[in-house]
Amino acid sequence: MAKTAKHRHKNKKYTLPKPGASPGLVYTDEHSLESVIKLHTYHADYYKEEALPDLNNLKEAINDKKYTYWVDIKGFKTVELFERLSVDFNINKLVLEDITMTYQRPKYEEYDGYDFAVSRMLYMDSEQNLINEQLSFILTENVLFTFQDRYEDCLIPIRKRLEIGKGNIRIGGSSYLMYALMDIVVDEYFAILGFWSENLDAIEDRLLDKPDKTIMFDTQTIKRNLITLRRVAWPERDKMNDILRSESELIDVKTKLYLRDAYDHCIQVIDMVESLKEISASIIDMYLSIISNRMNEIMKVLTIISSIFIPLTFIAGIYGMNFSREDPVTGKVLPQNMPELYAAHGYLYTMIGMSIIAVLQVIYFWRKGWFK
Amino acid sequence: MAKTAKHRHKNKKYTLPKPGASPGLVYTDEHSLESVIKLHTYHADYYKEEALPDLNNLKEAINDKKYTYWVDIKGFKTVELFERLSVDFNINKLVLEDITMTYQRPKYEEYDGYDFAVSRMLYMDSEQNLINEQLSFILTENVLFTFQDRYEDCLIPIRKRLEIGKGNIRIGGSSYLMYALMDIVVDEYFAILGFWSENLDAIEDRLLDKPDKTIMFDTQTIKRNLITLRRVAWPERDKMNDILRSESELIDVKTKLYLRDAYDHCIQVIDMVESLKEISASIIDMYLSIISNRMNEIMKVLTIISSIFIPLTFIAGIYGMNFSREDPVTGKVLPQNMPELYAAHGYLYTMIGMSIIAVLQVIYFWRKGWFK
Amino acid sequence: MAKTAKHRHKNKKYTLPKPGASPGLVYTDEHSLESVIKLHTYHADYYKEEALPDLNNLKEAINDKKYTYWVDIKGFKTVELFERLSVDFNINKLVLEDITMTYQRPKYEEYDGYDFAVSRMLYMDSEQNLINEQLSFILTENVLFTFQDRYEDCLIPIRKRLEIGKGNIRIGGSSYLMYALMDIVVDEYFAILGFWSENLDAIEDRLLDKPDKTIMFDTQTIKRNLITLRRVAWPERDKMNDILRSESELIDVKTKLYLRDAYDHCIQVIDMVESLKEISASIIDMYLSIISNRMNEIMKVLTIISSIFIPLTFIAGIYGMNFSREDPVTGKVLPQNMPELYAAHGYLYTMIGMSIIAVLQVIYFWRKGWFK
Amino acid sequence: MAKTAKHRHKNKKYTLPKPGASPGLVYTDEHSLESVIKLHTYHADYYKEEALPDLNNLKEAINDKKYTYWVDIKGFKTVELFERLSVDFNINKLVLEDITMTYQRPKYEEYDGYDFAVSRMLYMDSEQNLINEQLSFILTENVLFTFQDRYEDCLIPIRKRLEIGKGNIRIGGSSYLMYALMDIVVDEYFAILGFWSENLDAIEDRLLDKPDKTIMFDTQTIKRNLITLRRVAWPERDKMNDILRSESELIDVKTKLYLRDAYDHCIQVIDMVESLKEISASIIDMYLSIISNRMNEIMKVLTIISSIFIPLTFIAGIYGMNFSREDPVTGKVLPQNMPELYAAHGYLYTMIGMSIIAVLQVIYFWRKGWFK
Amino acid sequence: MAKTAKHRHKNKKYTLPKPGASPGLVYTDEHSLESVIKLHTYHADYYKEEALPDLNNLKEAINDKKYTYWVDIKGFKTVELFERLSVDFNINKLVLEDITMTYQRPKYEEYDGYDFAVSRMLYMDSEQNLINEQLSFILTENVLFTFQDRYEDCLIPIRKRLEIGKGNIRIGGSSYLMYALMDIVVDEYFAILGFWSENLDAIEDRLLDKPDKTIMFDTQTIKRNLITLRRVAWPERDKMNDILRSESELIDVKTKLYLRDAYDHCIQVIDMVESLKEISASIIDMYLSIISNRMNEIMKVLTIISSIFIPLTFIAGIYGMNFSREDPVTGKVLPQNMPELYAAHGYLYTMIGMSIIAVLQVIYFWRKGWFK
Repeated sequence: MAKTAKHRHKNKKYTLPKPGASPGLVYTDEHSLESVIKLHTYHADYYKEEALPDLNNLKEAINDKKYTYWVDIKGFKTVELFERLSVDFNINKLVLEDITMTYQRPKYEEYDGYDFAVSRMLYMDSEQNLINEQLSFILTENVLFTFQDRYEDCLIPIRKRLEIGKGNIRIGGSSYLMYALMDIVVDEYFAILGFWSENLDAIEDRLLDKPDKTIMFDTQTIKRNLITLRRVAWPERDKMNDILRSESELIDVKTKLYLRDAYDHCIQVIDMVESLKEISASIIDMYLSIISNRMNEIMKVLTIISSIFIPLTFIAGIYGMNFSREDPVTGKVLPQNMPELYAAHGYLYTMIGMSIIAVLQVIYFWRKGWFK
Repeated sequence: MAKTAKHRHKNKKYTLPKPGASPGLVYTDEHSLESVIKLHTYHADYYKEEALPDLNNLKEAINDKKYTYWVDIKGFKTVELFERLSVDFNINKLVLEDITMTYQRPKYEEYDGYDFAVSRMLYMDSEQNLINEQLSFILTENVLFTFQDRYEDCLIPIRKRLEIGKGNIRIGGSSYLMYALMDIVVDEYFAILGFWSENLDAIEDRLLDKPDKTIMFDTQTIKRNLITLRRVAWPERDKMNDILRSESELIDVKTKLYLRDAYDHCIQVIDMVESLKEISASIIDMYLSIISNRMNEIMKVLTIISSIFIPLTFIAGIYGMNFSREDPVTGKVLPQNMPELYAAHGYLYTMIGMSIIAVLQVIYFWRKGWFK
Repeated sequence: MAKTAKHRHKNKKYTLPKPGASPGLVYTDEHSLESVIKLHTYHADYYKEEALPDLNNLKEAINDKKYTYWVDIKGFKTVELFERLSVDFNINKLVLEDITMTYQRPKYEEYDGYDFAVSRMLYMDSEQNLINEQLSFILTENVLFTFQDRYEDCLIPIRKRLEIGKGNIRIGGSSYLMYALMDIVVDEYFAILGFWSENLDAIEDRLLDKPDKTIMFDTQTIKRNLITLRRVAWPERDKMNDILRSESELIDVKTKLYLRDAYDHCIQVIDMVESLKEISASIIDMYLSIISNRMNEIMKVLTIISSIFIPLTFIAGIYGMNFSREDPVTGKVLPQNMPELYAAHGYLYTMIGMSIIAVLQVIYFWRKGWFK
Repeated sequence: MAKTAKHRHKNKKYTLPKPGASPGLVYTDEHSLESVIKLHTYHADYYKEEALPDLNNLKEAINDKKYTYWVDIKGFKTVELFERLSVDFNINKLVLEDITMTYQRPKYEEYDGYDFAVSRMLYMDSEQNLINEQLSFILTENVLFTFQDRYEDCLIPIRKRLEIGKGNIRIGGSSYLMYALMDIVVDEYFAILGFWSENLDAIEDRLLDKPDKTIMFDTQTIKRNLITLRRVAWPERDKMNDILRSESELIDVKTKLYLRDAYDHCIQVIDMVESLKEISASIIDMYLSIISNRMNEIMKVLTIISSIFIPLTFIAGIYGMNFSREDPVTGKVLPQNMPELYAAHGYLYTMIGMSIIAVLQVIYFWRKGWFK
Repeated sequence: MAKTAKHRHKNKKYTLPKPGASPGLVYTDEHSLESVIKLHTYHADYYKEEALPDLNNLKEAINDKKYTYWVDIKGFKTVELFERLSVDFNINKLVLEDITMTYQRPKYEEYDGYDFAVSRMLYMDSEQNLINEQLSFILTENVLFTFQDRYEDCLIPIRKRLEIGKGNIRIGGSSYLMYALMDIVVDEYFAILGFWSENLDAIEDRLLDKPDKTIMFDTQTIKRNLITLRRVAWPERDKMNDILRSESELIDVKTKLYLRDAYDHCIQVIDMVESLKEISASIIDMYLSIISNRMNEIMKVLTIISSIFIPLTFIAGIYGMNFSREDPVTGKVLPQNMPELYAAHGYLYTMIGMSIIAVLQVIYFWRKGWFK
């Protein structure tokens, strides 16, 4: 359990700025991965994917307006890469800082000649930890740059659709590609919501079958993941809205119709998050009431057993006392001391008396509903 | 109990998009029901209902502007149906996607030549699970298409009113019919609110009579259903507002007056939901305080019994000790050991002493108010 | 207690629409009371009150612009009454529906030639249940219709002021009369808030003197009533605001000054409701902490008694064991078995040892602060 | 404790309207204090304070525009006073009603020729109850009327500054005087916040040293006082804002700069209230967790003692049984019954066995961490 | 612990106004530190830092428009300093009051010829208390005054960057310097958020390993610190927004681009605060459920031990009773009394019976899942 908790937190650590550092610097550190660059060149009937060693010759490679280009960059180790972007494509240094300091909220900003956008990919890794990865976009007329600091992502279906070429994907231009990537990020939210929803179902079944301590931890883990998702989905929704309202000429009019759909999806994600949060809260409430009820049951058992046998033990103790039958000095019998002991059927009567006491108590507890 | 929980969740599963799929696709899967199409043709003095095998000849069948047509489609198995709508009636593919991906929030959108709206029917099925079913509308000048993926619904009274022909139903045109269907959906909200309200009354009576564990579960179930209803009622209200403010010429001016009424109904639904939620919360609070109180009572019984008899048992134990009356070796009497045992009336005095202790304790607990 | 709860709910039941019924219908059912109509005719120096059997001749009776007329209608059994209103005074059917379906929120709507408003009268009946009754207004130039479905109300002081004729009541016209009625409804909110405030004071005194289970139920009852009042007071405030901003010529300019005052009253009601809700919550918190503390005290008594006497009883048990002084077969003495029993002063030393143990434990518990 | 609670509530009672009374009436009752009127006349180099028996000659007395006049009225018994205000100064009856019905929220209203404002003075009386007193202002060109229904207030420093004449106080005109009074009212909020903050510190120290029941009550008392203050501070802030935005010519431009400062103070008060509320909530949470922990400790003591000694007592009980050594009839020895009793060193072995059991249990509880 | 709590509060005390004091006064008291003034004079290629004894000759010293000046003032003891600012630089007295009354919220205000801004530095001191220190700015064309009442701060990196002269710091003018200082203040928020985040991780590990009482206190301490930070970060965000929207010519256009970045940082701080607050709440919830669970376990141990041994002890007690084998008077044997005692193998059978009872109880508790 402790290990899981540590894992979860490890994944939450962002690249944070050093206090007092100059703004507009590109942050890469020893944990940064080697940069891997892929260039996808396509139009309706053409598709090529090639790996680039660096961005030195990119500017010349993508100057044919006939094609749409996707420059897909993973890993931020090579600082020169960002310098090249700054020099060849005139990208503002603050934008480059936002790309490498991967704790940005989803946002959309228009600059001279290009638009900048941030999405946050959420997905479960193989150990079922929630990965919260930044996906940054730089959109120009016919080029889309994407940036991510890990190699894993949830964009594979888009790469396949691009290769296969069905639907609008190859003919929509760079803004449609950006939409398609943003949309699959949001679709992934649905996938993990579905996963958590099933987990909550399973937890709830456990709650009703045999509730144990892990219910609290598991539910809290999902609840926190939901909070992470909500914190991402709200600005994601605002971002979609910003793009819809933006008058940037880089966003194709037809793409906006699809973006409206993606905007609706964001709202539905937020809706479902709220719903699952309510279910989590209700599970925790029920779990706590189950603990309380169980405590009541434990105490009932103790109280019934104790209340019945403690008085009876006392009675047995009474007749176990050694008040003497004879004066130790004179040897004379002292019949006034504990005559019950010598009464005919004394034992029998005592046992009957004890039984009556026990039965009366059982009836009393029965009436109080303690046996239910 | 566990079964109920599973049922509830099973009904919540929507048709979700596959991540990365092209937008605008129609989602139908093996769980989709066979499509059943009914065409209602009517004007003030005329009413005909007929079943259609498909939509192939629909366009010709509904071109008489004298009549109002209601195309009532249930079950989405037949994909051709949606292709026909796309081809013959020029319906946008994103709209068709919204119709078949049945997790849409209530909304109202205007398109070229038609309006699209979504309502969510909530009703209790025979096993008292809350069914949350999507009802989609496509409204044109004199035709209303409705779509639902299950056969059951809560629209039967409208079909009857249409057949009987009383009131405005046959003369209001397609927008009035849409209003009437939307209104009955909202009226059904009142019906299930009434049902839950009575359930909560019954739970509260149980709470006051004999509270048990099921109170927590039953109240939580209602609370969640209320949350589902609220999540539906808020966008429903916004939808009504959107229609009221819309300048679509497909919405008749007279119909708007009625829609204002339906809008008020939505607000009242939200009001009643909040009210019932407060009652649920108050039941849960009271239940938890009852558990606590009961715990107190159980502990009181245990403490009173134990506190009275444990000391008495100790005293009995004292006089049950075998400190010897005679030296085992010499056989000489050792009167300094436990002289009480040989005192005249020792037993009587001991019993009196015990009784006094017991009575004092009872008085003590009485004063503390533990017998109340 | 259960009875009170049932009463409360019974009073909450509104007349709800039948799903699928035509809108604009007047709902009256077997529970509706016989309609009682009173016509108050007055100007500055004149006042007459007469009972009307029906509204058939009303239109002619109230055509003298010199007078102001108040048509005071209680009970909705007579459906003809509403038909007459519809025919003679051209009142919209949806308005008539709102009058008879008595679950409307406070609102204000302007129609052609008349204004429609709803207030909700809240008052405590003789059994101290909160009655939530709808009071509907139709305001024309010199006539005010009021509608209520019960005979009881809180408007009697207005009727008296009208008869006596002091103040503005007779000279303010129909809009001032409507204001006066609305204002007394709000004033009544203050009265019941005062009543509940005193109840909460009494509950708090009980909490500090001798808290018992009823505190939870009584506080929750008040809390729910407060929620009901708040649900009424918020739209009431909005209604006042709507009237203030409305440009209806039926609302006299001078009356608006008074309405501003009534608007302030609504805000104060909401303020006081929030204040009393906070007090309720604080009472419940304190009550729960008292239960917990009491539990602690009960457990302390049990633990002190048990911890002291159980070990002592064990010691007594030790010396009550029958390890033999002589071999049962040979009859030889076995002095190594339990020599303490034959030691001189063994009993005395044992008792002293037990006392020391008990005293040490008492000191231990004293130090832990368990006797405070 | 109960007494404190009663005191608190007694001070909360406002003068409430009688339902159905005419608006615009002046409410004074038998609890009203005798009116005491002081007239302060001043300009930069002049200051006079005189007591007035009534307001009959006031109009003439304050007609010299060279001076600024402050008419400082305490106690509302004399109704004639308000009639005089109505007649001589043309003050609206609704304003006079607001002055005497002392449950107004802070507000600012402009009328013909004068402005009306309400502040609420909060201060602790000698018994540390929170007094919530209304201070009403009527501001004209060079006259400021203030009204309060008690003799005590927190305005003494202003009276002194006026007498001494330092700073802007004598040269700022009537609007600056109103500002100065409003500002000292807000400054007093800081003073009581400081007082409560120290109280909370003291409570927290008690919480950490020796928590007892009074912590709950004392914290709740402060929490409620904070709520009272917040309910006053919010409309106070709005009032300041209203004055700042108002275009009334009675408010001097220079005064507005100071009012902006007072507005900032209100926001800081609200901020500090929120902060102290959080601290209160955190104290209550910690207190409840301390109760729970203490319960755990009590139960641990009980369980350790019981678990160790109850089984041992049982063993002692075993060997205290009287299974006979000889047949009662034949007198023959029955060695098969309880042979342990006659074993050599039986007692010793038993004691050793008991010790082992006890030690094992102690180790078990030690491992579970119950001794920490 | 108590000590820590006191420390925390001590640091929270602000300099508060004396009620009734004239506004615009400069508050310095015996706790104020000696004023230390540093003048930094720089342009792109030049940097000089000198200590000033007072501000008497400052006006002449900073009149060369070629340079940018930073007047860095710490400690407010010397009142003459503020008088000099008022006289030589025409700073409004209310501004000077705001500088010395160090409980201002972050804000930005424009005055004639200068802008005034407040930031709040938050940082952990050596004893890990959160210090909340005010940093005030007066910005003129080429001069920036900063004011702080303690000597410690978090601005050292800026002083170093200024000395080194890399980046924009020396060429951005006074508004860029103000931005840089504001930005490092916000960066420091990230630093302490990171520190708390790690603390929460550590607490959570302790929660999962061995939860004890300190978890509650430590988490609550962090929670309160988070609330302090949130209370600072919200107005900080508003302040950034105000500067961004301001049309003051003192704020350089290029600087605004950087401020937009700082504004984003504020939003991220608020986001992270919310996230950590949720984690804190979840830790407290888990801790409370752990206490409850532990209680259950303690009770289970007690109940199992008691339920098994109390009945057995009773049985042993039965056979420890002294019901006589012979009539004490006649000496005749009374075999009907307790014949079990003389039965062959009576002891054995009793022991077997007791074992069966114990085993049955163990099975019963096993089935109930109490051993898990």
